[in-house]
Amino acid sequence: MTQNRQVHLKSTPENNPEPGNFEVVSTPMPDISDGEVLCKTEYLSLDPYMRSQIAGRHMSGSIQPGDLMRGETISTVVESRHADFAAGDIVRGFGNWQEYSVHSANELSAQPKEISPPSYGLSVLGMPGLTAYAGLVWTAKPKAGDVVVIPAATGGVGSTAGQLAKIHGCTVIGIAGSDVKCDYAVKELGYDACINRKTENLAEKLTEYCPDGIDIYFDLVGGETLNLVCTKLALNARVILCGLMEDYNKPTRTPGPLPGPIIGARATLSGLVVYDFEPRRGEFIEACLPYVNDGRLSMREDMAHGIDAAPEAFCRLMRGENQGKAMVKVSS
Amino acid sequence: MTQNRQVHLKSTPENNPEPGNFEVVSTPMPDISDGEVLCKTEYLSLDPYMRSQIAGRHMSGSIQPGDLMRGETISTVVESRHADFAAGDIVRGFGNWQEYSVHSANELSAQPKEISPPSYGLSVLGMPGLTAYAGLVWTAKPKAGDVVVIPAATGGVGSTAGQLAKIHGCTVIGIAGSDVKCDYAVKELGYDACINRKTENLAEKLTEYCPDGIDIYFDLVGGETLNLVCTKLALNARVILCGLMEDYNKPTRTPGPLPGPIIGARATLSGLVVYDFEPRRGEFIEACLPYVNDGRLSMREDMAHGIDAAPEAFCRLMRGENQGKAMVKVSS
Repeated sequence: MTQNRQVHLKSTPENNPEPGNFEVVSTPMPDISDGEVLCKTEYLSLDPYMRSQIAGRHMSGSIQPGDLMRGETISTVVESRHADFAAGDIVRGFGNWQEYSVHSANELSAQPKEISPPSYGLSVLGMPGLTAYAGLVWTAKPKAGDVVVIPAATGGVGSTAGQLAKIHGCTVIGIAGSDVKCDYAVKELGYDACINRKTENLAEKLTEYCPDGIDIYFDLVGGETLNLVCTKLALNARVILCGLMEDYNKPTRTPGPLPGPIIGARATLSGLVVYDFEPRRGEFIEACLPYVNDGRLSMREDMAHGIDAAPEAFCRLMRGENQGKAMVKVSS
Repeated sequence: MTQNRQVHLKSTPENNPEPGNFEVVSTPMPDISDGEVLCKTEYLSLDPYMRSQIAGRHMSGSIQPGDLMRGETISTVVESRHADFAAGDIVRGFGNWQEYSVHSANELSAQPKEISPPSYGLSVLGMPGLTAYAGLVWTAKPKAGDVVVIPAATGGVGSTAGQLAKIHGCTVIGIAGSDVKCDYAVKELGYDACINRKTENLAEKLTEYCPDGIDIYFDLVGGETLNLVCTKLALNARVILCGLMEDYNKPTRTPGPLPGPIIGARATLSGLVVYDFEPRRGEFIEACLPYVNDGRLSMREDMAHGIDAAPEAFCRLMRGENQGKAMVKVSS
């Protein structure tokens, strides 16, 4: 019978993860019991928060050497022993880094048929999209003319937030780590400008592009970028604290932004965790499907192929070398 | 004719200010022109933000050696050449550190007669009270049962915020710099507990008094206290960023709170500047006068006497040795 190939963490990296920190393991196909559903993984989402799980610092729990790597997936139901699902259904859940997964029915959600391609259920119409929508639209409440700055501008959350900000009539400035990404941000995603943080002076460029200050900063990176941006806020600025990419690969944590300039700007900083918005996922999809259908909202997907390719794809993501949302097409 | 005695800054202190950094100067009585009002200072408010003005770091502008010290006052109109005011009126304005002041009519506000004693127009029903009300009630929106932490617990803003939090049914924990202040906070102001930051372990005591985390932190001090509190926030905590007392006497600024725990708590940090709430002062006084009249809201005033006593009183305030709202009764 077919084996179920899985990716386990082999050793905990200290800085940037390497493919050697992971191990592909063949395990027997799982059996299912009454009430359970056997799924074949179609797409696996790779996300920066996984680095934080490996470091033992993520709120969703830690991953130790020997553990199966975790992650969200779009899967096809192979066999169902629960009335809510039938073979052939497309479902979303945490199928993890493996070819097959077994779930209680309550761990799975039917993927709406309108989501096309199905991988969009893990990207622009999935958790990254929900994160962007909850932070930008529901929390920061953009107004036409607001100046919005987005680091990790071409990633899953950032590229959705950038396009949503343009839809809301904002001026949108991205920050990214290469000229290729910056070109993509401006030419394909519609950013008004994008700063290459590796070759340009970020402080000078932010002052040049945001002469009247920054109204909304959708923080996905923390670190010195957050601290710098918080000295350049406009009156009544909103800062969404949502990710700490700059610190994920570091053994220590960067101190936070000075409170003085935050007071002076009468700014609001809001911690955001996407899990809290799960009950509003339907509302988000309903709002964003029309944007996807009319082409104003799209997602470039950086797609690796086969579960064996997942470790290298994740390491590329953590080195910032992905072009678009990092994913794995697991089934052939 | 009577002289007008003023306090000028003589030299800029590097750390704690000393009385020798100030100079009392006798100047001629000012003349007034059409449209102006001559006022005799009754009460002068002394506030920590003045240290920031001296350091050249305050948003209201800097005070250089040779400049008149600035401050809010309650005064009696001596002579008016404007129809809105008449001799004998009680007015509030920025009369500064001097016995007499001249103002355009639009720089003065009539003090409501219901405010008794009149000095309350500079304390519990004045700018410190408005700061406390705007931060606690309008911004943090306390619910019964919320755990509220207030540093500088017995000062002008802190003691008002603490009493307002009790009125709203919260559990209120103070932080202060002496046993005398802590006793006062608990016995007179109604705090549930008060931590002596100089003799007790703040981290341990906060954990002991707030085992389920801190719902509201009304920050008046910044520094390491802010950073510590931000690691102990409850879910959906609100932090009001309003003062930087710990940094005012320092040449450098303390880095801010780590964003990670703020994200985890889904907390909101809001920069607050009381000037923004000036249009709502009447609404605030209307809400708080009943509390003052029924005894639930009061203010201990640490009253110095005569303008010559202002420098020493201000230095005591900056050393944290004041007992209640620091003020000067200027007129004899």
